[in-house]
Amino acid sequence: MISNLPSSGFRDFLPRECRARESAARTIAAVAREFGFQTIETPAVEDLAVLTGKGSGENEKLIFKILKRGEKLEKELPKALRPGEGFELADAGLRFDMTVPLSRYYARHQGSLPHPFKAFHMGPVWRAERAQKGRYREFIQCDFDVLGSGDMSCEIEVISAILAAFEKLKIEEPEVLLNDRRLLYAVLERCGIPSDKLAQACVVIDKMGKVDEAAIKEGIMELAGKSVDWDRLRGCVAGHRDDLALQDGSLDIFKRLEEIRDDLARMNERAKILVAPGLARGLDYYTGPIFEIRHPRAAGSIAGGGRYDGLIQAFGGKPTPAFGGSIGFERVMLVLEELKGAEPAQDASRVCVTVFSTELRREAFAAAARLRAQGFKADVCPLSGRLKAQFKYADATGARWALVIGPDEAAAGRFKL
Amino acid sequence: MISNLPSSGFRDFLPRECRARESAARTIAAVAREFGFQTIETPAVEDLAVLTGKGSGENEKLIFKILKRGEKLEKELPKALRPGEGFELADAGLRFDMTVPLSRYYARHQGSLPHPFKAFHMGPVWRAERAQKGRYREFIQCDFDVLGSGDMSCEIEVISAILAAFEKLKIEEPEVLLNDRRLLYAVLERCGIPSDKLAQACVVIDKMGKVDEAAIKEGIMELAGKSVDWDRLRGCVAGHRDDLALQDGSLDIFKRLEEIRDDLARMNERAKILVAPGLARGLDYYTGPIFEIRHPRAAGSIAGGGRYDGLIQAFGGKPTPAFGGSIGFERVMLVLEELKGAEPAQDASRVCVTVFSTELRREAFAAAARLRAQGFKADVCPLSGRLKAQFKYADATGARWALVIGPDEAAAGRFKL
Repeated sequence: MISNLPSSGFRDFLPRECRARESAARTIAAVAREFGFQTIETPAVEDLAVLTGKGSGENEKLIFKILKRGEKLEKELPKALRPGEGFELADAGLRFDMTVPLSRYYARHQGSLPHPFKAFHMGPVWRAERAQKGRYREFIQCDFDVLGSGDMSCEIEVISAILAAFEKLKIEEPEVLLNDRRLLYAVLERCGIPSDKLAQACVVIDKMGKVDEAAIKEGIMELAGKSVDWDRLRGCVAGHRDDLALQDGSLDIFKRLEEIRDDLARMNERAKILVAPGLARGLDYYTGPIFEIRHPRAAGSIAGGGRYDGLIQAFGGKPTPAFGGSIGFERVMLVLEELKGAEPAQDASRVCVTVFSTELRREAFAAAARLRAQGFKADVCPLSGRLKAQFKYADATGARWALVIGPDEAAAGRFKL
Repeated sequence: MISNLPSSGFRDFLPRECRARESAARTIAAVAREFGFQTIETPAVEDLAVLTGKGSGENEKLIFKILKRGEKLEKELPKALRPGEGFELADAGLRFDMTVPLSRYYARHQGSLPHPFKAFHMGPVWRAERAQKGRYREFIQCDFDVLGSGDMSCEIEVISAILAAFEKLKIEEPEVLLNDRRLLYAVLERCGIPSDKLAQACVVIDKMGKVDEAAIKEGIMELAGKSVDWDRLRGCVAGHRDDLALQDGSLDIFKRLEEIRDDLARMNERAKILVAPGLARGLDYYTGPIFEIRHPRAAGSIAGGGRYDGLIQAFGGKPTPAFGGSIGFERVMLVLEELKGAEPAQDASRVCVTVFSTELRREAFAAAARLRAQGFKADVCPLSGRLKAQFKYADATGARWALVIGPDEAAAGRFKL
């Protein structure tokens, strides 16, 4: 007997859950369209060179790799045990985010796409995380990106679209935290982090509040040596503004950030918009403004993103400014479930057409066809005879009506709902 | 520089293609709902024990396997080179169809599901086929299944739902071929195939018309020895009815098949419905009626399926009759493209809001918000100034209107489309 459990860390979804997920996904996609983002699709599988080439950071360790096959595998296996020899049993892997595939896609297709290009890119991603409650190895991401423009309107449009999606989903009072990697870098340099370690330091700092503070301190010390001014750094990460770091170029960046904040606040009156000097984000490819959206009902963020002006060039594209934001679909579903907003209203148009007897099956199918033509959802019960079992089926499927076509109705050629 | 091509055999989709795919997928899902099928979701990744346990047949060789990680991999590697010792570098793989995961799902969840259960299960599947034109390693399947009922209405409802989906997609004149594995088995036994080789023989016979006939003959001879009456078997596969095989139990099965055909014909007047005595289908788990839907514009079938009454028990479920059909989404998209039916009509509600200058950016965003509130799709151009570039953007994105809010419009606080 084969186990009927899903693979560890993976999930099945019951019809009720699927309805809620589909409804939320449809809402998000509709808002993306409304804001002029165009849907693209990329494959689940990418070559390892693409996945590990740039910008994978911490996630590289979490790639599900796909075993080579046939001759390629046979050639590789003997190498695997010769000491010192390199070998690679896998040549491809499952995508761990949507940004790396999007960058490859844009580098390849930009000649056929509008310039700039507003992309909506939604689908499952996979990470080989240690399986634990609430953390899954397959989860959906919904990404909004603007490629090919360094204009501030990208930041405003992406974040506004995500906020509009939350509003449509009835997720109220989201809190938007804004920062700029360049501001954080200025602070970190003032605190003694060498300039070539700044991006890595952000990946460590992003763990604040998620792991033990001592571990963060240790990570930073390891990266930058003992000369780090930990207390000052800690203050900044806790959200204190560091005016000393806000000099010269930094001051302009800070003013632009405030401008983004003010524009967003004007357009999204129900959201709280804050500049958060300690916000780091855990990816090393960000180069400018970054953001995160939080909600009182969610642990961690429900959306986040930033500017990544260098990533597309890695795939041979022209230098291309880019800004993107991603909705954490699974966390959004958890919030919706808590708010009981996920369950769509019961559908009054659902009819279960019972099959009175095998002789009257045709009449049941004919009735169902007539109902469907009038806009009803008509489910012919896949049983016949035994009406009790069929009524039970009608109940279990959530049908609003159960229709019985007995000999009288069949003879009259009409029925009443 | 990293290559910007997708992994061999995988595809990117441009926005135009995504619109056509989304629209077709929505249509199919809406028909499934209309017919009372409930959406379920299962993961992309399944344990290898599930994928290879039963019913994978030829597809087992095509599984993309996922490399073990960490300690598990280190423990396995040394075994790989010791001769004669078994080893397994992978513990999971990507699903190659939707039926095996559905069977696992139903064995696990049947207590929480209606009885019988009508499932709609749509998503990508992966097969490590040799990459070649028109054959992809990732493709979408849309499955309609009725689990827990042996009633003939399952066959009628599944095939009718699929035909209704084709009708909504404006794929006209589909041809439905019907057969029953038990009839084919009776013929094959009469032609000299031993009873324990019947299912395998069907997998070979299914290749008729796809590969060289000599190869089929060789395959059958290899399976069953020289005593096979090849000419008679060939005649049957070519579609000739074999009345000698239609005796005793077989005759009843044949009559039921004709009944299914007649019911389907009555309900689906635009489709051609035929009993096809040579139809085999290439999976070994079918146990009763099987079908395939063809279209003059498609090479091969655009849908197919059958009854698989034994599969769910393999996962420890109760004995469970089941019938399912699957739409070959990629082939359907090819047909739609040929029929030029895939392109949705241009959307008259799409407006590109240009940004006259950075000073007037706020006004552009405000105008976009007003347009969206009135049901328009408003795309704020992610550029500012340079109106020529912005008009080019409006064209490239297929906007119906481009809106310019200059100082006069801003001062007046109104604009005209």
